Amino acid sequence: MSSTVDAVAERANVSVSTVSRALRDMPGVSQETRKRVQNIARELGYVPSLAGSRLATGRTGAIAIVTPNLSKWFFGQVLASAGRVLRQAGFDVLLYELADTAARERFFAGSSLAGRADGVLIFALQPTPEELATLEAQNLPIAFLGSGTPGRSGVRVDDHGAGRAAARHLINLGHERIAFIGIREAADSTLGGVPPANRLKGYREALAEAGLEPGQDLEVHEENSTAGGSRAMSRLLCAEVAPTAVFVASDEMAFGVLRTLKAGGIDVPGDMSVIGFDNHELSEILDLTTMDHSVALQGSETARRLLALITPDAGAEPDLVLSAQLIVRGTTAPPFPLRGRRTATPA
Amino acid sequence: MSSTVDAVAERANVSVSTVSRALRDMPGVSQETRKRVQNIARELGYVPSLAGSRLATGRTGAIAIVTPNLSKWFFGQVLASAGRVLRQAGFDVLLYELADTAARERFFAGSSLAGRADGVLIFALQPTPEELATLEAQNLPIAFLGSGTPGRSGVRVDDHGAGRAAARHLINLGHERIAFIGIREAADSTLGGVPPANRLKGYREALAEAGLEPGQDLEVHEENSTAGGSRAMSRLLCAEVAPTAVFVASDEMAFGVLRTLKAGGIDVPGDMSVIGFDNHELSEILDLTTMDHSVALQGSETARRLLALITPDAGAEPDLVLSAQLIVRGTTAPPFPLRGRRTATPA
Repeated sequence: MSSTVDAVAERANVSVSTVSRALRDMPGVSQETRKRVQNIARELGYVPSLAGSRLATGRTGAIAIVTPNLSKWFFGQVLASAGRVLRQAGFDVLLYELADTAARERFFAGSSLAGRADGVLIFALQPTPEELATLEAQNLPIAFLGSGTPGRSGVRVDDHGAGRAAARHLINLGHERIAFIGIREAADSTLGGVPPANRLKGYREALAEAGLEPGQDLEVHEENSTAGGSRAMSRLLCAEVAPTAVFVASDEMAFGVLRTLKAGGIDVPGDMSVIGFDNHELSEILDLTTMDHSVALQGSETARRLLALITPDAGAEPDLVLSAQLIVRGTTAPPFPLRGRRTATPA
Repeated sequence: MSSTVDAVAERANVSVSTVSRALRDMPGVSQETRKRVQNIARELGYVPSLAGSRLATGRTGAIAIVTPNLSKWFFGQVLASAGRVLRQAGFDVLLYELADTAARERFFAGSSLAGRADGVLIFALQPTPEELATLEAQNLPIAFLGSGTPGRSGVRVDDHGAGRAAARHLINLGHERIAFIGIREAADSTLGGVPPANRLKGYREALAEAGLEPGQDLEVHEENSTAGGSRAMSRLLCAEVAPTAVFVASDEMAFGVLRTLKAGGIDVPGDMSVIGFDNHELSEILDLTTMDHSVALQGSETARRLLALITPDAGAEPDLVLSAQLIVRGTTAPPFPLRGRRTATPA
């Protein structure tokens, strides 16, 4: 493997390490030696390999991105926006999709990243204390997107505030029976589950403040997919007193909710108001009222925070907590009896 | 950097290279020496680094995936399905999104992959002959998804046949004014553009065989997005004689088409039939008739073909050409006058 580099070293009468440093423009080699080594290397056709370069510099030029899922819209968006920032900084992206428990265990079990990456982005995944310890033992900078690890560099959304805001919008419209459809962790999922829990807390708080009691039968959790949303809405339609509005923790689930309501002949927003969460690019097509949580910004800002940890000259970036914004579209309106009343006697 | 490995070599009275081979269970080291080196390494706390391991084995344990785009639904799907196959085979994924001309030039300019990957997957991107030569100079196995490189290992869709089939469905329903909305390459896009061209050819062929003349004003190309689809449909509504049906080269564009038709009060499929292309997971929600081209299978089968090139014992896999299948949903029907006639005199 190293026969050529040996030959260069011998001919130049220097060590292999000096050859390596000379050819990579690293310090500690005189100008004269550098020139001589470069000329001999050119004569013998020796090109230093990247793996060798890594040994010499200790840098890999790659950032590891760890995500539970690649096929969901959210992850495509944050991956693309983080990737853009990393690419501009000259880094490659090493991608780890921990799509099941086995993949997750394998990833955290060993020193998977040693010598492979210069830093780690953890997307929407809550490592256990043991997993975090394994990562930290590798001495790599880490930045988090969306997971609630206090004191950690990263970006997250104020899910509690967002849940409150969505529920407030429905309360302000006059709804009193307001349901919540949350994301249930799949048995084999690696999603941390932290964000949905805080969305639920915000929803409950807003209802309590308005003197409304969220009935247990108005809180339903399902898989984060259109099919999951359809199933959740079907269950809500069997409640003792059906809701007049529903806050859905993801737009993809909300699409399934809209399908079920259409199939059941239930008019939106005439008979039922629906708010989603994401501002998915197709939510506009379906005229879905939703909470925008700046998904692309989450990806790029998390990447920027990691880069600041890698190149400390750049200055540390404070943690970023993003507020979600209500996007009012055509799936929310006052409940039917109120609409009538308001038309008769405008306030 | 290598002080510990030097110490191990000195104590065991062997070369550094022998230490490396002994600790990695590589051939060329006697059983006795291997044992001795392993014991001394344990005593001195020396763990061989991954970069060093790469130098010794010439393997990186990573596969490079090159794509023009990460945020589109299609790429999320093929990336996830290919990633699953690679992960099961023990490979990491190194991701290159060539989202603009600069990124593409940088990627193909140098020996970007040397020492970083054991193979390359090229997704929906048509390298120029020069770019292909650069890649081949790196001596890495390559497999292609979706690009028309004859004699290359890979997976593609019979876009010509799919375009014919979509057009035939509309012709068989009785449509005579059938428009085509294709994908226009963005100025700064790296999409090869080959598949849309073949879908258009199939459409034209089917129309010609049916004695129908595709008017120039019925072929519109736009950016592959819902906004692009909306713009394309708006232009078709200005045609001298408006179409009664439209074949759209991607579901995301078809979603935009449906939005424009809804906004314009044009009933689907009453006044206008629409076929998309993809079987996007949200096409079912919008009840969109579409062509399913087994997107997840494209990703996994391309990955399997690359693995077969890397481990030749696995046996070479022949190229795979997938046929797209029509999924009939609620956006296609006979044109209005025919529907009336058929109701009056059923065949």
